Amino acid sequence: MHDFNYRKNTLYCEDLEVARFAKKVPTPFYLYSQKTIADHYLKIKDAFSALSPLICYSVKANSNLAILNILIKLGAGLDIVSGGELYRAKRVNCPAKKIVYASVGKTAQEIKRALVEGILLFNIESYAELVQLNKIAEKEKKRPLVALRVNPDINPKTHKYITTGKKGTKFGIGLEEAQGIFLRKDNFPFLRLEGIHIHIGSQITDYLPYVRALKKIKELIRRLRKKKIKISYLDIGGGFGIVYNQENPRTAQELAEKIIPLIKGLGVKLILEPGRFIVGNSGILVTKVLYIKEAAEKRFIIVDAAMNDLLRPSLYGAYHKISPLIVSKDSKADSLVPADIVGPVCESGDFLGKNRRISVREGEYLAVMSAGAYGFSMASNYNSRPRCAEYLVKGKQAYLIRKKETYADLVGKEFIKPKLIK
Amino acid sequence: MHDFNYRKNTLYCEDLEVARFAKKVPTPFYLYSQKTIADHYLKIKDAFSALSPLICYSVKANSNLAILNILIKLGAGLDIVSGGELYRAKRVNCPAKKIVYASVGKTAQEIKRALVEGILLFNIESYAELVQLNKIAEKEKKRPLVALRVNPDINPKTHKYITTGKKGTKFGIGLEEAQGIFLRKDNFPFLRLEGIHIHIGSQITDYLPYVRALKKIKELIRRLRKKKIKISYLDIGGGFGIVYNQENPRTAQELAEKIIPLIKGLGVKLILEPGRFIVGNSGILVTKVLYIKEAAEKRFIIVDAAMNDLLRPSLYGAYHKISPLIVSKDSKADSLVPADIVGPVCESGDFLGKNRRISVREGEYLAVMSAGAYGFSMASNYNSRPRCAEYLVKGKQAYLIRKKETYADLVGKEFIKPKLIK
Repeated sequence: MHDFNYRKNTLYCEDLEVARFAKKVPTPFYLYSQKTIADHYLKIKDAFSALSPLICYSVKANSNLAILNILIKLGAGLDIVSGGELYRAKRVNCPAKKIVYASVGKTAQEIKRALVEGILLFNIESYAELVQLNKIAEKEKKRPLVALRVNPDINPKTHKYITTGKKGTKFGIGLEEAQGIFLRKDNFPFLRLEGIHIHIGSQITDYLPYVRALKKIKELIRRLRKKKIKISYLDIGGGFGIVYNQENPRTAQELAEKIIPLIKGLGVKLILEPGRFIVGNSGILVTKVLYIKEAAEKRFIIVDAAMNDLLRPSLYGAYHKISPLIVSKDSKADSLVPADIVGPVCESGDFLGKNRRISVREGEYLAVMSAGAYGFSMASNYNSRPRCAEYLVKGKQAYLIRKKETYADLVGKEFIKPKLIK
Repeated sequence: MHDFNYRKNTLYCEDLEVARFAKKVPTPFYLYSQKTIADHYLKIKDAFSALSPLICYSVKANSNLAILNILIKLGAGLDIVSGGELYRAKRVNCPAKKIVYASVGKTAQEIKRALVEGILLFNIESYAELVQLNKIAEKEKKRPLVALRVNPDINPKTHKYITTGKKGTKFGIGLEEAQGIFLRKDNFPFLRLEGIHIHIGSQITDYLPYVRALKKIKELIRRLRKKKIKISYLDIGGGFGIVYNQENPRTAQELAEKIIPLIKGLGVKLILEPGRFIVGNSGILVTKVLYIKEAAEKRFIIVDAAMNDLLRPSLYGAYHKISPLIVSKDSKADSLVPADIVGPVCESGDFLGKNRRISVREGEYLAVMSAGAYGFSMASNYNSRPRCAEYLVKGKQAYLIRKKETYADLVGKEFIKPKLIK
């Protein structure tokens, strides 16, 4: 569910007529609904309320400060993966005790900063990293709370690039090895090693992978407690799937109904890390049709957004619904020739959608739906294209939350005359 | 051939010891050899000298101003694909009459700017774009030189994302349709439609695709001239392949020997658009090993560079050779366990190489080779990672040509408090 709906053939974001707004600003641009963002956060909060979890929004999905600020104000914490995301968390005054930090490649500098800030939890992905964190904690005279990211060897049946809880991925530590580390936790005197973190993947539409993973984790906790090992935090990650096309993902309520009984009475503080679930359907990418090209065997709708603006179709073969901002009244989509929707970037891989039946003319606008997660956050300047603006809608008003880049921005850090490094 | 070579087990870029330099600056970073860049440009220039072509370096491969400046100083022109690249061309004082502009999605604003600048040639990709250019040219009182990008329907056997001269791609106009447009060129009175452009793909290692395409184009020119249509420019694009792994691409000399006889005496000005050929092997990405992780079924070398720094492995499955900056003397690579070289980004798709036998320890450095083309130019801030610095080597000196981004840069255009758009 989201707040992008047609009224009399015209797409609205909340109470804003998108086509009318599009005429006022340069295209392409991202447009988000504040109401959808808040609603999705509250859906998870309500569904899991029996456990009062800490819900840490996954910053990497969409890291715009205004969006982080909405969620912080609602009481969310943040799930960060880098020093840059820690910086963002601080900029929106996220309480340190609501920040959890996961990444297979935390640098010493990043660890130190997070220690000094006093974040709630380090999610640790390897033995080598545990050694590193212990060393830095000793030096900084801290004793941080640590969770081991355990790899439960579950196949969530999602894209191979976002499958993260199976053997053979770079993430986490196997169940056996994790148990061994907990048993020898005295090797790490500067860490409070009493959490378990799992994150089995992204865009998971069923509850079974969670249930299977949690059963394995419960068994691990049982074995550890037998050995007098204290486990007080359980971070079950995110990965809740959303609708891009014909998916039928479980609702937060349905997931909660399956997950809560597994965790209730376990005596752990639950942490959730939703990202896509909150922002995925909360944003669209609006683009203008530059040219309609009728080639020998294909029709191309050439638009002013490209793979540098939205990489998901190219990188993951991801499907995004693409709809005209104004549906022409006499359009009979079924009878149209299928077209590829492509951008100006000089690669065949630069497409937003393939074989779509869309009735649209040059100069009109299209909305690439469900572009709120992993859209702007993956944008680049490829082909020297400035990154576009981001807007947030509240009711019938639109607000700028990120300015479009300029040509001057593209080269602002470059030197025509190289500067000697001594 | 390039100027990255080992001397006594230590990698040098020209006369600079890379490991020594790496200790002085933050990792990761890109490092380019000025000599390699110049050499590769001159190789093409010399090989094709019998035709005195205009060699327009393809800016999208690596658009750093310092690199453009090197090539402009050597007499190169520029092949641009966007208004941003036109801006870059102007910043390095590239003569307008050495600029050619190709893109399937030129906006009206971009066309106008290029017209006002007086660039040499518009490479036009569709009938709709020809109509648009003619209209703007009339308004601006210009009469630009135009080439039709003809799609010769050649399969160059490269990655599907960089195959651009086959039917069913968004690029160019079929031979038949192109002929029809030339015959009705009076429909476009504000255009000097007298060029043909082909660009069949990228990373092409054989000469046959060029020969096949050129034979088709020669036949088209013959037919057009019979009808008194003047063809004075032939832009054969770029796409010359380089060595990433075991490829055995044709040298510039070999390509020229096959191509020159087909064009000599044709009475056209030849334009070439090399990009990867010039910069591909001229740059490396230097990264530090953060952790070595021994997982159940795999070994992971976790480094501080990631898919946001170099997207090619993730996006194209591209192979880059990865070598330690200092080869340990007793290393017997063949006996080592194969490892995946992965970055800190939270995706399984974040890898730089798979199943490589590399002897390296935590804190040591690796060079990702042949990263000069489509490396930095595709970089992003994914996971809120600042883009890294770029350095240029001349002899034994290194020079900064692009500063590393800061955390503050990441959010510089964002507003925590949304700004109302009226």
